[in-house]
Amino acid sequence: MTETRQQAERARKAFLKLSAVVDRSAILKEVAAALRQHASSIFAANARDLAEAKEKIAEPLCKRLVLNESQLHEVITGIEQISEMKDPVGCVLEETKLDDGLILRKVQTPIGVLAIIYESRPDAGPQIASLAIRSGNAVLLKGGREAAQTNAAIGAIFRQVLQTHGVEDAVQLVSTREEIAELLNMDDLIDLVIPRGSNAMVRMIQQSTKIPVLGHADGICHVFIDEFADVDKAVRIAVDSKAQYPAVCNAAETLLLHSQFAGREKVLAALKNVGVELRDSGFGSEYLDLIMNVKTVNSLDEAIDHIHRYGSAHTDCIVTENETNARRFLNEVDSAGVFWNASTRFADGFRYGFGAEVGISTNKTHARGPVGVEGLLIYKYHLIGNGHIVATYTGPQAKPFLHRKLPLQ
Amino acid sequence: MTETRQQAERARKAFLKLSAVVDRSAILKEVAAALRQHASSIFAANARDLAEAKEKIAEPLCKRLVLNESQLHEVITGIEQISEMKDPVGCVLEETKLDDGLILRKVQTPIGVLAIIYESRPDAGPQIASLAIRSGNAVLLKGGREAAQTNAAIGAIFRQVLQTHGVEDAVQLVSTREEIAELLNMDDLIDLVIPRGSNAMVRMIQQSTKIPVLGHADGICHVFIDEFADVDKAVRIAVDSKAQYPAVCNAAETLLLHSQFAGREKVLAALKNVGVELRDSGFGSEYLDLIMNVKTVNSLDEAIDHIHRYGSAHTDCIVTENETNARRFLNEVDSAGVFWNASTRFADGFRYGFGAEVGISTNKTHARGPVGVEGLLIYKYHLIGNGHIVATYTGPQAKPFLHRKLPLQ
Repeated sequence: MTETRQQAERARKAFLKLSAVVDRSAILKEVAAALRQHASSIFAANARDLAEAKEKIAEPLCKRLVLNESQLHEVITGIEQISEMKDPVGCVLEETKLDDGLILRKVQTPIGVLAIIYESRPDAGPQIASLAIRSGNAVLLKGGREAAQTNAAIGAIFRQVLQTHGVEDAVQLVSTREEIAELLNMDDLIDLVIPRGSNAMVRMIQQSTKIPVLGHADGICHVFIDEFADVDKAVRIAVDSKAQYPAVCNAAETLLLHSQFAGREKVLAALKNVGVELRDSGFGSEYLDLIMNVKTVNSLDEAIDHIHRYGSAHTDCIVTENETNARRFLNEVDSAGVFWNASTRFADGFRYGFGAEVGISTNKTHARGPVGVEGLLIYKYHLIGNGHIVATYTGPQAKPFLHRKLPLQ
Repeated sequence: MTETRQQAERARKAFLKLSAVVDRSAILKEVAAALRQHASSIFAANARDLAEAKEKIAEPLCKRLVLNESQLHEVITGIEQISEMKDPVGCVLEETKLDDGLILRKVQTPIGVLAIIYESRPDAGPQIASLAIRSGNAVLLKGGREAAQTNAAIGAIFRQVLQTHGVEDAVQLVSTREEIAELLNMDDLIDLVIPRGSNAMVRMIQQSTKIPVLGHADGICHVFIDEFADVDKAVRIAVDSKAQYPAVCNAAETLLLHSQFAGREKVLAALKNVGVELRDSGFGSEYLDLIMNVKTVNSLDEAIDHIHRYGSAHTDCIVTENETNARRFLNEVDSAGVFWNASTRFADGFRYGFGAEVGISTNKTHARGPVGVEGLLIYKYHLIGNGHIVATYTGPQAKPFLHRKLPLQ
């Protein structure tokens, strides 16, 4: 058995203990304190990673490697907040009285073993690992090679704390590049893969595993300016959706303009004014830059068809004062986020009020859109009886079930 | 482009229309009426399938091909009940006021295009197709070859009704055996695969696709008789779990007996008395027959370890009067159903009160345990603003979000 497989088996055992026995809130408080206490050793490791990287990789990639004081502070504060979240494990979601003395409970539980695969930025690992611990999941962390020493320093601190609670294998680092393929093959031991990184990396992962992948590759978002749009709102929303921060997945890549919309020139001028280059082709491209495709459409239907053809089902917006058109757009566009008179840039777990974000999913099952801790949870059914058997409820003298929903506490 | 791929693309288009525009309840009422009206042509097709099958396949398989009057009546009544279900599409699951005039709604939606792959029993197709229509999903139905004429007769009736509503491609039959592999490869067009059939078939499907599969292969369920078990309850639950109907997934395959349990001989005698053959090996086997593995364990921990090692995470039961042990078992056993003093045979959507069942899932994401119509649903986010942009909420003068949960109607 390979080392990675042994790690996954140990993670599975640790998950069973972590989900049932341990004070997960205390663990997170201690992790936060230990990270604060050992900050200097983390910065030293990060400095070594950076020095080595500067000889090998380009400047922008090096920048993403940096873990400075304010970033680490943010990670630690985040973990403290997560430690204070209400424990989601064991929460009763539904309760049904099947018969006298026979109670069915749908109980929230962790998923199991998660593999988190993240590229250079070293803060994604501890953030998601903390959410995983909060919700009782074990994690295998596969960070970028360039940040190996930073990741090792952080991982050692998690492990030290987890060890004192008897669950040291609940967070483990997986360390060589070759192991990604191996992780993606272990669908018998790993329940969910969470990739954080470039589109190319996410797409590669989605295409090479049967394990469910929580995330998204492309973010090809649209702003459709309807013929009944308010010109000022159209200008504000087009500019914010494209230019407020163009390097992220929820920035818009395509502007669809109704041919009867009166403010066309104002919108285009405003975009050019903030430095946006306008193009009339490349509708499947995610530029992540101050470049925007512009297309004229003759109807709402044409806009919706375009979005379904070229979009990535991430986030799409209609600007209109016509409620009928807005309702049709909201109902008919099959994307994780469908917005009316609001910038696509709002598609984000923190802005939605989730407190913590695992990622943004364009999946059609389990979790969709910005995903908070609930994306790391599932449920099981507890059935509590007193010697009840099915024979009582079958055949010609079958006793009927009550199936009475009980109020939740 | 192959014919199957064209079918899937047409299904995708029909889904977008079905989910947004059409009166799905009326469609189902009309389907039920049309099935009743054309019953004789369905029985005639079934008789032809049976006549051909008798020359080729064994008697028990032929039996599963039969669609008799009472079975068709049950299918039709089921469809009528489903037509009267509250429409799950568009149901608001959460509503949050992000700021004045900026409302976020989590809205229930269908998943998209489902592929339902079912072996000989011809009633599984129309049942699941009706749940799919109710919830706004399009379906590709791939039935068993032996039931081809029965399936075609039923499929034609669905199509006829759907056609009058302009969504004839929302239910389509896929007809040759070779097309299963092709369906399983279309992860760009099919969102969920639902297999209904033998363990071998489900396992083959799970192992050959990246599309999420809703279902389970093995059902290796355990009954653990704790040292503190009541002897009468132990006898009742062991016998019911194994022998009430042994051919199904929620029947128990293994009896774990605590070495200190006083009623051991009574339980074993009761099992033998109803014809159960007892074995002391083969713990990974699903017999689906009057055969049961028996193992003596010395502790609750040993029982839990055994279940995690040999079980299929379907349904497992503890019989005990000791609440501490029961709570540990309920919390620590990582199965879709974990029961205390109740037969494993209760693990079923109808017994749970779901009204309709899509299947039983041993997945760790999306849906677990017996799955009703909610397994065919996901959600999207509607964000409704009035020209709101993210720039307002960022930077040094950032306006704070309200993030106020609104009460649901």
